[in-house]
Formats: sequence, structure tokens, C-alpha cells
Amino acid sequence: MKIGLDVMGGDYAPQNIVLGAIDAFHRLGRDSEIYLLGDQIKITEICRQQGFDPGNFSIVHCSQTIKMDEHPVKAYQKKSDSSVVVGFNMLAKGQLDALASAGNTGVMLTGSVQTLRTLPGVIRPCISCEMPMVSGKNVLLLDVGFNTDCKPDYLYQFGILGSIYAREMMGIERPRVALLNIGEEEEKGNMVVKEAYKLMVDSIDFNFVGNIEANRLFAGDIADVLVTDGFVGNICLKQAEGMYDLIQRLDVRNEFLDRFNYEIYGGTPVLGVSAPVIIGHGASSPVAISNMIAQAERALNNKLIEKFKEAMSYE
Amino acid sequence: MKIGLDVMGGDYAPQNIVLGAIDAFHRLGRDSEIYLLGDQIKITEICRQQGFDPGNFSIVHCSQTIKMDEHPVKAYQKKSDSSVVVGFNMLAKGQLDALASAGNTGVMLTGSVQTLRTLPGVIRPCISCEMPMVSGKNVLLLDVGFNTDCKPDYLYQFGILGSIYAREMMGIERPRVALLNIGEEEEKGNMVVKEAYKLMVDSIDFNFVGNIEANRLFAGDIADVLVTDGFVGNICLKQAEGMYDLIQRLDVRNEFLDRFNYEIYGGTPVLGVSAPVIIGHGASSPVAISNMIAQAERALNNKLIEKFKEAMSYE
Repeated sequence: MKIGLDVMGGDYAPQNIVLGAIDAFHRLGRDSEIYLLGDQIKITEICRQQGFDPGNFSIVHCSQTIKMDEHPVKAYQKKSDSSVVVGFNMLAKGQLDALASAGNTGVMLTGSVQTLRTLPGVIRPCISCEMPMVSGKNVLLLDVGFNTDCKPDYLYQFGILGSIYAREMMGIERPRVALLNIGEEEEKGNMVVKEAYKLMVDSIDFNFVGNIEANRLFAGDIADVLVTDGFVGNICLKQAEGMYDLIQRLDVRNEFLDRFNYEIYGGTPVLGVSAPVIIGHGASSPVAISNMIAQAERALNNKLIEKFKEAMSYE
Repeated sequence: MKIGLDVMGGDYAPQNIVLGAIDAFHRLGRDSEIYLLGDQIKITEICRQQGFDPGNFSIVHCSQTIKMDEHPVKAYQKKSDSSVVVGFNMLAKGQLDALASAGNTGVMLTGSVQTLRTLPGVIRPCISCEMPMVSGKNVLLLDVGFNTDCKPDYLYQFGILGSIYAREMMGIERPRVALLNIGEEEEKGNMVVKEAYKLMVDSIDFNFVGNIEANRLFAGDIADVLVTDGFVGNICLKQAEGMYDLIQRLDVRNEFLDRFNYEIYGGTPVLGVSAPVIIGHGASSPVAISNMIAQAERALNNKLIEKFKEAMSYE
């Protein structure tokens, strides 16, 4: 299995990215191979500094870099020899099996829809994020930013995609799927959410457990998968990040709160496209990068894409 | 000035409400009078237990109570002798100048639009909430739940209403108004927010400072007024409440985080209707109730409604 890693993306690239890859090298199975996409000289240099043989990686030299603040669509079109564009092209041709990057999120989304195929039956791919709950478990929130304007059937499909992800990747046998809403009652919410509720309440595609309010997001352990549109989901995620930053700044230390540390998360997988794509936080630490690579490997081992295909063709 | 207080609404009614009224009695100016709406016997009893003369209040006996979980519109129609309905009727007739309740929020919103008038020029009233920032200041978030589906011109008007509220009630001379969004750039957001941005960017009605992401909500001190639709605003508010609850449960103590304690907040004012209406959190403590009454008095003293009228008729 060939896992591509964009070495040039992220606030601390390429240093943190290569360090994460070195860590991952020791964790991955014998059949997995890490492809580093980026500046060959820098990659080699960092490896040497660590006393690590760069020959353990397949290095694909790319002459261009897309910066964190570049316009995603324009940058993706113009920089054909950037690590991200090269990565997506290799993924589309089957020269890679998965791709991970802590770079410009917009560019990763652009590549996911422009270069990869959306799986048959999927209306809109989405991105998801595991958030900690006090119970010790995580809840998968989706969409966290791909689709800012959603229709009810998009949300319904996020329920299917999230449910499969939770089962295959989080090990939850019969994931509980809920809608993020401003009240628990059926008639609550905006127009899209109300209609989505109606679609979900009789779902045979997943185990719908109703609406959840945001005050029970972390404490409730009512759901394993929490569906919302990409605008609301992104705001939720950022608010949690902001609260985490604040708590750090206030020097408050707590084991549970530390689990919000997005610098050690794995990544945010893109769901609904033809290959595993994982987007990391810009501030990803080497541990986060290593976790992303391991996450990509697990998605391949568990045949996540095949499971999505089966579920969506059933529709 | 006659300030009405619904004694029967709230998780700890009537006890906490009457205790809060007694506290407020000592704080208010000579010209202010507190009208207690509810069960006269219970009110008198609680006053006596506190060694407080109930004759200090004007008590309006109401035979009915609307519970926290009743259907707002149905309850409002059926229970014409409930404390809330009596309160709104008195407010509409000028027998009261302001109304406060920690009861069923939906019922308070129903009364605000069914019994009161929306101010001329106001498309949709909204509700707002002051949230703490690390800087020590507060930011006014609105709408926090009145309008789940908003059009761009609603959001624009929330900017006007919020700006006036921040000036008159929070003492900020030239309030900075921002849009809650998923990126800082102009082109970010869902369709409604993008259009609202275009309306706001050239505003002469308020001081627009651009988009804010939710990770800077508490830490940034970039804006005094933060505009969003009632669906997103309600989720933000509830998420902050949930985080506060969690932090309490984890026994983490911190001066700043304690400011999130919604049990000691004043209330959530309804903006855009013909009289000051303040909705308290169900879990309001006596301090919160007292703060709500003081907030109503301040709105009357500062002629908040007149300021709204001037601004909106200018439109």
C-alpha cells in the first residue's frame, strides 16, 4: 500500500512532516510504503539530521509549493508540480493508494473533487473530525467545512458516510447517528435540518437517534456520529479549538481537556471520494503527522472506500 | 418605571425569582417599581420567609403557569391568565414598561411578536447574548435563536440593532461589528453570509470590521458585536454553556472561565420590539434574576427603544 505524504504543507513544513513520517515508518505494517512528495534535498537533509536513511521512503521530488494562504483553486490550477497536485495525480492514476497533507485545506478539497472521482451515488463529499467526549469515546462530526450550503439529502448521506466511517475506523458496531440542532424536538431547527430529520427518522441506512443540542456535544455521549452542514460544523470545530487554545493560555491543565489538542490529532478525512484523503491541521506536530499516516493505512486495511461504495450503490 | 417579572418561569421558580426580586429592590432607583406576576400566596410566603415586606412589590396575581416544556404557541394561546401572557398584555397596554422572565424561551418569543409590535423598519426581531472575552470585555452575539433561517438583510439589521445595544447598554462608543464566518476572507461563508458581507462592507449604519472565525470568539477582542443567524448563534451559545458545564464537572477553576457561568448572567434581551423584554436562562440564580431586572431598568433609563426607533426610521 502506497501512502503519499505532502511534505511541503503545514505551518511547520517540511520539518514536522518528515519527522512524523520517520515516526510512522516504524509503526506501519510491512506492506505499507510511504511516498514523500516535496523538496528532495530538504527531505534528505532532515532525514540525515535524524540519522535516518532516506532510502526507507520513496521520495517524489516536486519543484513547487502551495502556501497556506494561497487561493485554493487558482493555486491548484497553476502549480502543476506542487507536492499536492502531484500527489492527487498519482492517486488518480493508482500510483498512490492514499494521500495525506497538513497543507492548505482548500487546495486539498479542490484536488479531491477536481482530480479524484466522487464515488457513484454520493451527492457531495464531506470532511469529518473526531472530537473527544468526557466518556472517553469520540464523536465524529461532519461536515466540518466542505459544503457551506447543504440540502437535506446531503445531510442524510453524511449520516451514511459517517456511520460507515465510525464502524470501520472507530470500531463502533452500530453507530448512533444524530443531527446537531437547537432543540431535541422533531420540529426544531432551520428548514434544511427539519427536512433532514424527516428523511433520517425512518432511515434503514443508519441508526438515527434524533437531535442533539450543542451543550451536550462533549458531555452527552448520546451519539457516535453528529451530522451538520459544513458552515455550522466548521464553526463548532473552530470554537472548540479556540476554547482549547484559551485553556492552554490560562494554564489550566486537565486530562480530558488535553484531548482537544488538535496538534496531536490525526487528520480530517475526506469522505465520499475514490481514495482515502486525509487533511491535517496546519499546526500538526510530528505525532499528528504520524497519526495521519497510520489513519490512512487503517482506511486501506479496512477497505473503507469499498465499504462506502457498497453502501452508496445500495441506495 | 414599571418592570414586570414573571415569577413562575424558570427551573427554580418561584423561589429564585422572588429572591432575585428582593435583591433587585435594593438596587433599583427610586422611580422603578417591580411588578411580580404569579401566584400571590407563594410570592407573599417567600417574602415573609425572608423577612421582606411584600408590599414593596406590586403583585399581580395570575392563576396559570406555563411550564418549561410546553409548546410555546399553544400554551400562549390557551393560558390567558398565565404570568407571561398577563405580562405581555400589560406591556402592550402600557401598564408595564418592561418585562423579564426566566421561563420558556419559546413562549417569550411568541409573546414578543404576537402581543408586542415589531418596531417600524425592523424586518425580524432577534435575541442577543453577551459572552465573555479574555480581554475582560464582552462581545454581543446575535441572533442566538429567534430566526433559524435568515436572509442577508436580516443579518444587516442585526448589525444595526447590536451596534446600538452595545453603545447604549455596554458603553462602547463606536462598537466594532463583525460577521461570524468560517474564514476571514470576503468570499468565505455560506450564501447568506456572503451576501450579508457585501451589504455590511459599505455600511454607514455601523462600524463593520469584517469576518471573524469561531476560534477567535473568546480570545480575539476583534469585535464588540458578532452577527450570525439564530441557528448558528444558538449552537455557539449552547456549545459555550456545555464547555462551561464540563469545566465545572472536571473541577477546573479559573477566573476567566467562571465568567461563562450562565447562572449569574443577566438575560438575553429581545431586540427590535416595542418594549424591553429580557429572557433569562432557565437555571437562573437569584443574582441572575436581579441582574435581569437591573438590565431592564438600564434599558429604560437609556431609552434603548427610542434609540432603536431613530436608527430604524432613518433606514
